[in-house]
Amino acid sequence: MNNPSKYLESLVKEFSKLPGIGVKTASRLAFHMLDLASGEVEKLARSMIELKENIKHCLKCGGISDEDICTICSDDSRDSATICVVEHARDILTIENTGEYKGIYHVLMGVISPLDGIGPEDLNIASLIDRCKENKVGEVILAIGPRIEGDATSLYLARILEELSINVSRIAHGLPVGSDLEFADSATIIKSIEGRVKI
Amino acid sequence: MNNPSKYLESLVKEFSKLPGIGVKTASRLAFHMLDLASGEVEKLARSMIELKENIKHCLKCGGISDEDICTICSDDSRDSATICVVEHARDILTIENTGEYKGIYHVLMGVISPLDGIGPEDLNIASLIDRCKENKVGEVILAIGPRIEGDATSLYLARILEELSINVSRIAHGLPVGSDLEFADSATIIKSIEGRVKI
Repeated sequence: MNNPSKYLESLVKEFSKLPGIGVKTASRLAFHMLDLASGEVEKLARSMIELKENIKHCLKCGGISDEDICTICSDDSRDSATICVVEHARDILTIENTGEYKGIYHVLMGVISPLDGIGPEDLNIASLIDRCKENKVGEVILAIGPRIEGDATSLYLARILEELSINVSRIAHGLPVGSDLEFADSATIIKSIEGRVKI
Repeated sequence: MNNPSKYLESLVKEFSKLPGIGVKTASRLAFHMLDLASGEVEKLARSMIELKENIKHCLKCGGISDEDICTICSDDSRDSATICVVEHARDILTIENTGEYKGIYHVLMGVISPLDGIGPEDLNIASLIDRCKENKVGEVILAIGPRIEGDATSLYLARILEELSINVSRIAHGLPVGSDLEFADSATIIKSIEGRVKI
């Protein structure tokens, strides 16, 4: 292909490295940059670099934060007796968006996956146990994605935490709200029958 | 929502201004930046700013270029007697990607659209006529999107160019290759019947 500009070519290449962005979308984004005012493009570029330079992981929960301790861990109005365990820092935002959960969080930074060489010692499990021992934690809610590795990690954590006489629960696996049985896969149907609740 | 980082919030806001990127994708991209090495993020940021600072419009065709005259206009092996007229500079890349067209281009920078206050004098039409007069142009191919404004612009250009005794053609409108009649809209079916060719 005869690309008329090496600057354009280089930006398209960089954009297409991003997740979910193919060459066509990358090209559209690059051309969009040409239509934007210089100030707008600089603002986006600066935001990316500032994020990278300034963001930290909260020393308590492992979530992302601008300070050493994140806004959730340092918020006294949150129920520190309930810890929700998530795989990634971004999952905290997903749960926070619902506005319903009032407890605190703990980020594992992955799941146990022997095939990828990730064992329990590679995850933030020791710090979770320390937090449970140090504070009066009543319940740990495991909010890990229902895949094989996720389920195995949940089981592993449940066994350890139950020894500390902490109530361990996991989020329900079943049909998404607004969906139809017709379009659900068998594994989800099985989970939703196993996890049925009395009405 | 309780966003744990103002840097993250600001980057998500900037990303979601881009075309085709909603808040969820913007958030995914921002979290992806956190996983990337600092060098990678800087490379992307620098590419955006460099593109903005260095790219020009070719003085001949109006396409994007790193120099005053683009690589296509300055390429002697291209057939300068055939000019393909497109709406936007990005359309040149789309046609170049096919590797089939050997002529040169001319970018209108839009279409005639009285409702948006865009008349023929707002587009690169005068320079197209000058190019046709100065050079021995045998054919002008109008490759403008088949919408109402696009068709009107094609008709307008065809009338002017025919006065200069230039052969004017427009790209075919019909069923996309690999598609099915079942899924085509009526307007496309009508165009494809009108534009039928002998086999």
